[in-house]
Amino acid sequence: MNLDAIKQPALILDEQRCRRNIQQMARKVAAQQIVLRPHFKTHQSIRIGEWCREEGIQAITVSSVGMAQYFAKAGWDDITIAFPVNLRELEDIVALSSQVRLSLLVLDPETVSRLGNAVSNTLSLWIKIDVGTHRTGLLPDDFVTIGQITDAIGQFPNLSFEGFLAHAGHSYQTRSKEEAQRVYDASLRLLLNLKQKYASVFPHLKISLGDTPGASMVDSFGEVDELRPGNYIFYDLMQQQIGACGFDDIAVALACPVVATHTDRLQWIIYGGAIHFSKDFLQLTTGEKCFGRMVNEDGRSWSVDQVEKNPFLVSLSQEHGVVQCSEETFQLYKPGDISLWLPVHSCLTAESAGGYVTATGENLDHYHRERIKQL
Amino acid sequence: MNLDAIKQPALILDEQRCRRNIQQMARKVAAQQIVLRPHFKTHQSIRIGEWCREEGIQAITVSSVGMAQYFAKAGWDDITIAFPVNLRELEDIVALSSQVRLSLLVLDPETVSRLGNAVSNTLSLWIKIDVGTHRTGLLPDDFVTIGQITDAIGQFPNLSFEGFLAHAGHSYQTRSKEEAQRVYDASLRLLLNLKQKYASVFPHLKISLGDTPGASMVDSFGEVDELRPGNYIFYDLMQQQIGACGFDDIAVALACPVVATHTDRLQWIIYGGAIHFSKDFLQLTTGEKCFGRMVNEDGRSWSVDQVEKNPFLVSLSQEHGVVQCSEETFQLYKPGDISLWLPVHSCLTAESAGGYVTATGENLDHYHRERIKQL
Repeated sequence: MNLDAIKQPALILDEQRCRRNIQQMARKVAAQQIVLRPHFKTHQSIRIGEWCREEGIQAITVSSVGMAQYFAKAGWDDITIAFPVNLRELEDIVALSSQVRLSLLVLDPETVSRLGNAVSNTLSLWIKIDVGTHRTGLLPDDFVTIGQITDAIGQFPNLSFEGFLAHAGHSYQTRSKEEAQRVYDASLRLLLNLKQKYASVFPHLKISLGDTPGASMVDSFGEVDELRPGNYIFYDLMQQQIGACGFDDIAVALACPVVATHTDRLQWIIYGGAIHFSKDFLQLTTGEKCFGRMVNEDGRSWSVDQVEKNPFLVSLSQEHGVVQCSEETFQLYKPGDISLWLPVHSCLTAESAGGYVTATGENLDHYHRERIKQL
Repeated sequence: MNLDAIKQPALILDEQRCRRNIQQMARKVAAQQIVLRPHFKTHQSIRIGEWCREEGIQAITVSSVGMAQYFAKAGWDDITIAFPVNLRELEDIVALSSQVRLSLLVLDPETVSRLGNAVSNTLSLWIKIDVGTHRTGLLPDDFVTIGQITDAIGQFPNLSFEGFLAHAGHSYQTRSKEEAQRVYDASLRLLLNLKQKYASVFPHLKISLGDTPGASMVDSFGEVDELRPGNYIFYDLMQQQIGACGFDDIAVALACPVVATHTDRLQWIIYGGAIHFSKDFLQLTTGEKCFGRMVNEDGRSWSVDQVEKNPFLVSLSQEHGVVQCSEETFQLYKPGDISLWLPVHSCLTAESAGGYVTATGENLDHYHRERIKQL
């Protein structure tokens, strides 16, 4: 891997690791006759989307109307926006619904009526259920609101009630296969109960679940219709801590110039801060915070050998990263050298980077660049 | 203020509050015959830079070579890059040194030699001193390295030793005028001791300090030559918590659509997450985390009346913000409405936004947009 051209922090994508992640998840889910509708908010890249298509992916999830437009232009025609409907973008939603098979999440009957009155094409609506994360969604026993929503959908012939959708975000608190399985089973059970309750009126309704810890650690997905994990395409240190991946599965690393070394405290300063990594961090078992962990360039891409003994980022400010080394590792680099860092939260690091460089030097797109250009 | 056109999260800049902040600091520092060299990494905007120029600012600080290029193109000709020299950008530094009066920070003699051998124009070098923040800088008693650096500078006639520069970042831990004064005085004392020690050899050497808590809370700056605060141009909730400003001084607010409301827990979900605010948060006295605080649109811009009773952001994910309301405030908004949020850390929020909209509808630039376009 040639890092000579890198002058500023740049996000390196290991195509081989990334394609392996895409392939393994595609095969695992397909083997159980479940639809994999990956969440593209992690990579936000048309080029990486093509790698997914090569593994049989035909339907995708995104988290904003703008991201849906970005992928619609690239030929994706079955898109779920897994975010509560933003009524300020109703015109764009109407336009999008004429171009692709669009699915949206709803949580209240007023939004359904606004959509029904505005959209003349077919629109699929999922009811978002809170399976325990307490971010968004109706409580699983809020039959009053569920009834109001299905009634509202019934008022408009072009709106279809797709089913119940949830994101078990509390799976991020799990630390073992058993815990992940428990969260997954409990979430699925809540949705299956709802499906059963409404099956006589809506015989075709579906269940959609999906988060990377669950999709990675659970072996048998049961009676779910589709899964929507996103982060698995890159993974990151947070997923490694959860147990959803190994260090060697993480497919992105931020290349950062070393700009200063402090012998007295065995620390380096790298050019790579909050605006490059994002401020998400891990709490290590030692009580220390970790904002990123160094890996070793190995010719082809990077090796994770001895990664837990490698220097790690103990703090970030706007552009600075403070790196803690050991006596052994302090001598590895001097100012002017390039260091490579596994990120804590790859979705946010990719968003900040606004693009990727592959280990072979190819530049890949990211929707962030398009969004910022349109401002 | 007309928020009708806002569909997605947008950073609103109150020009009146911003110009007041710029003016007050300019007058306070000028009255003490000290150079104010504001850090433009907070706003990163050519347009806002013009407002600074109108208040007599002639010299600026930035945090990257790219940012220096951006402001050099806009006519700024006296620029300090307050970040350790990134040797990977040596060619750009050389080019820049032929266009503007460029000052850099150095921490080791090797970097000085690399600069001396590459640059043929005049270049001013500051030695970065660690006054207690322990991020970058030489320890104030590291006379060996200081001597090596001044010797190295002496080898190259076009390099000039400007003096000692520090950033008292630990002022962010202060919570009163007295504490801020103590950190400022101790920092200044360390630099004055160094100045005195080297005065016989370098009679013209200067002292540069600067951080927003100190610059805002200290009344008398003593024998310092220049100050480099940056955040004061906008301020934010972090500075309010420190005591460096009031809520009413904060000059930016993020406009975010409300997309869902949860009656059971008196929470709203806004379209506005980590990729818009950044993940910096405050710890409130109640023990809760706060990622942003709501203000009320008041016709001209926003009012901070009752701001501490207003809803606040308790968590952020990629695009979601979770807002905690009280019984009284929960009814204020419904999905489709626009809410306004004071950020915890305005530098990072502005970086994420990549631009500003003024209360009168003008669009202002931000270097982030230029940087991302160049990828």
